[in-house]
Amino acid sequence: MSASVAASVPSMQCFIILGLPIIKEGDDIASLVKSLFDFQDGDVLCLASTIVAKSEGRFRELEGYHPTDRAVEIARNVGKDPRFVQAVLDESTEVLLDQPFLLVVTRFGHVGVNAGIDQSNVGDARILLLPEDPGRSAKRLRTELGKDCAVIITDTCGRPFRAGVAGVAIGWAGIAALRDWRGVQDLHGKALEITLEAIVDEIAAAANLLMGEAGDGTPAVVFRGLKYPSGGGDSVFMAKDKDVIRPRLKR
Amino acid sequence: MSASVAASVPSMQCFIILGLPIIKEGDDIASLVKSLFDFQDGDVLCLASTIVAKSEGRFRELEGYHPTDRAVEIARNVGKDPRFVQAVLDESTEVLLDQPFLLVVTRFGHVGVNAGIDQSNVGDARILLLPEDPGRSAKRLRTELGKDCAVIITDTCGRPFRAGVAGVAIGWAGIAALRDWRGVQDLHGKALEITLEAIVDEIAAAANLLMGEAGDGTPAVVFRGLKYPSGGGDSVFMAKDKDVIRPRLKR
Repeated sequence: MSASVAASVPSMQCFIILGLPIIKEGDDIASLVKSLFDFQDGDVLCLASTIVAKSEGRFRELEGYHPTDRAVEIARNVGKDPRFVQAVLDESTEVLLDQPFLLVVTRFGHVGVNAGIDQSNVGDARILLLPEDPGRSAKRLRTELGKDCAVIITDTCGRPFRAGVAGVAIGWAGIAALRDWRGVQDLHGKALEITLEAIVDEIAAAANLLMGEAGDGTPAVVFRGLKYPSGGGDSVFMAKDKDVIRPRLKR
Repeated sequence: MSASVAASVPSMQCFIILGLPIIKEGDDIASLVKSLFDFQDGDVLCLASTIVAKSEGRFRELEGYHPTDRAVEIARNVGKDPRFVQAVLDESTEVLLDQPFLLVVTRFGHVGVNAGIDQSNVGDARILLLPEDPGRSAKRLRTELGKDCAVIITDTCGRPFRAGVAGVAIGWAGIAALRDWRGVQDLHGKALEITLEAIVDEIAAAANLLMGEAGDGTPAVVFRGLKYPSGGGDSVFMAKDKDVIRPRLKR
């Protein structure tokens, strides 16, 4: 038995941070997670976007929105409150689909349904926007952690062609979004065809698996022992001019 | 320090299985991984589709394909060998995009570029098809493992709107594709909006993170300590009639 186990490598370790309070505006998430977990250099901290948004005061009252005619029309298509639709439009730079659901490009470049605006976990008539700039939030949180850690802010998204939702990264710091396999050769000495791996999304997916969506959710997860390239300004959001699906949605 | 660590839960454990030989047709993958790792009930074994396909003899010689006029035309659009395109068409039920790359629905329902056919890691003039029915392969491997484990067969795919590729599940057994959060209430007692989580894709993404794409790749990864619903005939492939993107690609 021990010989068998020796042939496998215990790889990445996963920790769920327990004991976080319900986050309110102004809460210092970095201090809270540091009080609950001993971070080491190289750790990857994943935080659900909801708690980052809450700490940044991204709550809005629906009654504060005054829908335009366009918002009213889209609201009819998608079966939503026109004020909610206006909130989505305000957070977006482009509408990709206005039925049967509202798929937009957010101001920070992420494509998501309803601009990721959440109506659960915030009480009636209130909504929770995504962080204004999740990349900036991740950078700040990384600095506040005070260790050479990576920080990934996660959300869940539906995906074309696939059922259900999965965790994705909407902001990251201290880690490259993409791992570059270019120049790496395969077993037969040919260059690999697939060259860029969206590691921040893969880590966010793993984190979402452990977070749970429910009321007893645990919105902070740490991965240890993962080798990853340090950050450098790349993005997991596909550049508009490289996207072959987006233009086909416009009709 | 110990108080801090006590507030976190060491969660899911990850193991990379080392020492697998290069897989050839007829190799017994279940026996090989069992000889290298002590499986426990509840473990999730992720296997790269390439090794499953190789063991199932899914190599093909390009010269065995005789391209139709349509294959020749698509080959011009996508800059590929017409015989390769013919192989893709043979493995597909529907073409979603025929330029700038060839996006198809495979015979088993997965949407992927080039039907997931691999030209790396197999030598010149040979290609490697995906397993004929990855779900069936996963079921067989699960039986051969002889434990109450889940088996997920993974591939890597590009994604609309997002850069790079990420691991996805193309076959699974002993685990539900989707975790159903319906009926679960949030912190304020409202029903959660997002109800189906594509856990097999999230696990596949985590596995791909650990496997590596390269010539020294480790195509078998085990997760332990993950709670997951047992299998029951659901799918991570979106049903055609629920897909709002697919019909918009047809022009």
